[in-house]
Amino acid sequence: MFDKSTYSNRRKALKTKGLTGIALILGNMEAPMNYRDNTYHFRQDSNFLYFFGLDFPGLAGIVDFDSGEDFIFGNDVDIEDIIWMGPQVTLQENAAKAGITNTAPFAKVFDLVKAAKDAGRKVHFLPPYRAENKLLLENLLGTSAQSINTHASLDLIKAVISLREVKEAQEVEEIKKACATGYQMHVAAMKMALPGNWEQKIAGTIEGIALAGGGMTSFPIILSMNGETLHNHDHSQILQEGRLMLCDAGAESLLHYASDFTRTTPVGGKFTQKQREIYEIVLAANNTATALSKPGVTYLSVHLAACEVLAAGLKDLGLMKGDVKEAVKNGAHAMFLPHGLGHMMGLDVHDMEDLGQIYVGYDDEVRPVDQFGTAYLRMGKRLKPGYVITNEPGCYFIPALIDKWQAEGINKDFINFDKVNEYRDFGGIRLEDDILITETGAEIIGERVPITPEEIEAVVAKG
Amino acid sequence: MFDKSTYSNRRKALKTKGLTGIALILGNMEAPMNYRDNTYHFRQDSNFLYFFGLDFPGLAGIVDFDSGEDFIFGNDVDIEDIIWMGPQVTLQENAAKAGITNTAPFAKVFDLVKAAKDAGRKVHFLPPYRAENKLLLENLLGTSAQSINTHASLDLIKAVISLREVKEAQEVEEIKKACATGYQMHVAAMKMALPGNWEQKIAGTIEGIALAGGGMTSFPIILSMNGETLHNHDHSQILQEGRLMLCDAGAESLLHYASDFTRTTPVGGKFTQKQREIYEIVLAANNTATALSKPGVTYLSVHLAACEVLAAGLKDLGLMKGDVKEAVKNGAHAMFLPHGLGHMMGLDVHDMEDLGQIYVGYDDEVRPVDQFGTAYLRMGKRLKPGYVITNEPGCYFIPALIDKWQAEGINKDFINFDKVNEYRDFGGIRLEDDILITETGAEIIGERVPITPEEIEAVVAKG
Ligand SMILES: [Mn+2]
Ligand SMILES: [Mn+2]
Repeated sequence: MFDKSTYSNRRKALKTKGLTGIALILGNMEAPMNYRDNTYHFRQDSNFLYFFGLDFPGLAGIVDFDSGEDFIFGNDVDIEDIIWMGPQVTLQENAAKAGITNTAPFAKVFDLVKAAKDAGRKVHFLPPYRAENKLLLENLLGTSAQSINTHASLDLIKAVISLREVKEAQEVEEIKKACATGYQMHVAAMKMALPGNWEQKIAGTIEGIALAGGGMTSFPIILSMNGETLHNHDHSQILQEGRLMLCDAGAESLLHYASDFTRTTPVGGKFTQKQREIYEIVLAANNTATALSKPGVTYLSVHLAACEVLAAGLKDLGLMKGDVKEAVKNGAHAMFLPHGLGHMMGLDVHDMEDLGQIYVGYDDEVRPVDQFGTAYLRMGKRLKPGYVITNEPGCYFIPALIDKWQAEGINKDFINFDKVNEYRDFGGIRLEDDILITETGAEIIGERVPITPEEIEAVVAKG
Repeated sequence: MFDKSTYSNRRKALKTKGLTGIALILGNMEAPMNYRDNTYHFRQDSNFLYFFGLDFPGLAGIVDFDSGEDFIFGNDVDIEDIIWMGPQVTLQENAAKAGITNTAPFAKVFDLVKAAKDAGRKVHFLPPYRAENKLLLENLLGTSAQSINTHASLDLIKAVISLREVKEAQEVEEIKKACATGYQMHVAAMKMALPGNWEQKIAGTIEGIALAGGGMTSFPIILSMNGETLHNHDHSQILQEGRLMLCDAGAESLLHYASDFTRTTPVGGKFTQKQREIYEIVLAANNTATALSKPGVTYLSVHLAACEVLAAGLKDLGLMKGDVKEAVKNGAHAMFLPHGLGHMMGLDVHDMEDLGQIYVGYDDEVRPVDQFGTAYLRMGKRLKPGYVITNEPGCYFIPALIDKWQAEGINKDFINFDKVNEYRDFGGIRLEDDILITETGAEIIGERVPITPEEIEAVVAKG
């Protein structure tokens, strides 16, 4: 945990956001795997971690906007439990670490919520994403679990986002630790990018590096020769010479801050000419995005600038044609890059995604764009110092998408389909760094994972 | 998956158990970690795996006892999804792998269940352990999610247990594969049992071995210098010379069959005299249990025989006293061994624990014993060929328990508390193998993980 003042200060800041009533912030419970008592690694809720810091199951927190008081509810273990679980710290001692003196057994949260409701006070809660907490909220509030999310508090959502989106220096230090583990994971994966290796063996090995570092992976690892399949969690293939291995993976720090890197390595360690040409374009888009990111600039404009770098490069190779700016305006680049440039990152790898991407990545000024490709941009709004975002352009050759666009003549003025079809078996390249917006620009967090073709080839060669 | 006839035959066998109506067997959904779309590794429900084999989310199966038909419900992906997820196998092709031709979109399961209910037919279901499936059952059956478990079908539970408890030869082969990965995990842990190593680094590294093997761990790893803390998932300590490292860990095979071994290694690789004396007693209890296990014998009797070996050994060391059989009869050994000898193992590490331990481990003839220690025995009933069970005696020095018994004079005729108090900082030893009941006896599955003090010391020395 951070120092207790961290959590007190965050709750104090939440109380300045103009809300009345109480905020009920539920911790997570254990998540059953194949029976109730065989559970996944415990992952505390990120909002609970942010305001209360305690990293074990069975807790609920309340922030009372009217009285200014904070509460933690949870159960102490009894004497029988100590025999099985060893000596335990009391809830009171734990709560003190979060700067809280008001503690009570978990069941008391029902009384406090009921009293608030009976007094006509508003009970704010954030949208639950686990069914266990939906059922708990049903019990607490009398609102059906099936529709509970529609009753979440938009005021609380916006207040929480306004705090969590700007990272404290100590949070950036935690992200740096997650990045250091991520660095190790990616270098290990590169070294294993050899013909005959099973994708799952590599993915499992680097997940082990995350776990040995003390955290989990920050999201399910993507590691595949089919880098063009964007939502790919299949690791069943055997690596083949001449193909590319795309690896998108990150770790959590001990305090559950994320890292999220993507690197693309030629199987066997040598880029072909064709691979290197596309690779250099994606790398240029990545470097351009970091160079352009600074306070006051919208990330939507950075996204579009990266898309222009991509389009210009593809035009040089004869894959695209016509005016580059017009091409991007018409979304022609999106056949090659159908996703957004990046997303906020913090306690969640897609930070605060549970609170609603529209509130995290956009605001009244910068609205989402309804065009294939840019529509998937998770983060468009103006950058501020303290934002941590990912910078992850890519270039993919997706046969199903190529066929669809060619058949329907989509953006045929900007795409040379004949040339594109020579790349049908290319796969995909994505290059992703984690960047911090500073007062004057942006910097890559931690030591940059090897990224130039020469660096990548050297890592594989060293083995 | 196994051959499709495996699943057809299992469903056919289920239909011979005298049930009427339909059995609704839900697959698992994705389990959210810190937001809806950031999920844990998918783990299919074991009962669904047993009868339908398909290992992906969003499925439900129905066995119709009256018509003899089987159904699988799930959704095919649409063309847009293929762009993101790559080419997909249709539900019909997948269902065929389980020997099923009746498939329909997921929503149709509502129609079929409603039709069955309207016709006054019984809808059997197994007790759900994930809240997502409780909410789904609420939707399907109109029974509150909060109390749905009380409506599970005991007839179906007993029928499923009667099938799953006897392992097919191909299931034993899968368990053997899980054991081979478990072997690697334990040897790796032993080699890392060195002063200065962080417990979590070791636990994470061996979890990585499980993942690199293609499965997950079969349960959350226990790895600690505090082996006396039985429910210990803390890995925060730095290993110290002179202490013992207890490691209880196993893997899943690709088809989700479990292994579950425990070994105890002296930090630094050399047993002290005191450690070796206790170790040899636990090892003798383990070997005795395997030697006594055979068809027709109750595992309760094997448990008690192992307890007698422990008590006799502890008497030789002066820790216990009096008549050994009387001591065990009075439960005096349970201060040192407060848990049971073992449990069934298969698709779940505690096989079918979701169906109710009382039905899995006991029957009308052999009933649970209500005495501290033996009360925690998960498996007591008569052994049959094809049972796979764990054999995991231990000896622990639990200060809180010692103090309680000494203060209350519990079993003071059988325990030399003065001598016992010399072992307060000893920790604990557990030794666990996975055994198959054969026609004539029992055999350890796969190559036995190094277990004699000499073998353990040699593994650590080799490094
Ligand atoms: Mn990312
Ligand atoms: Mn076990």
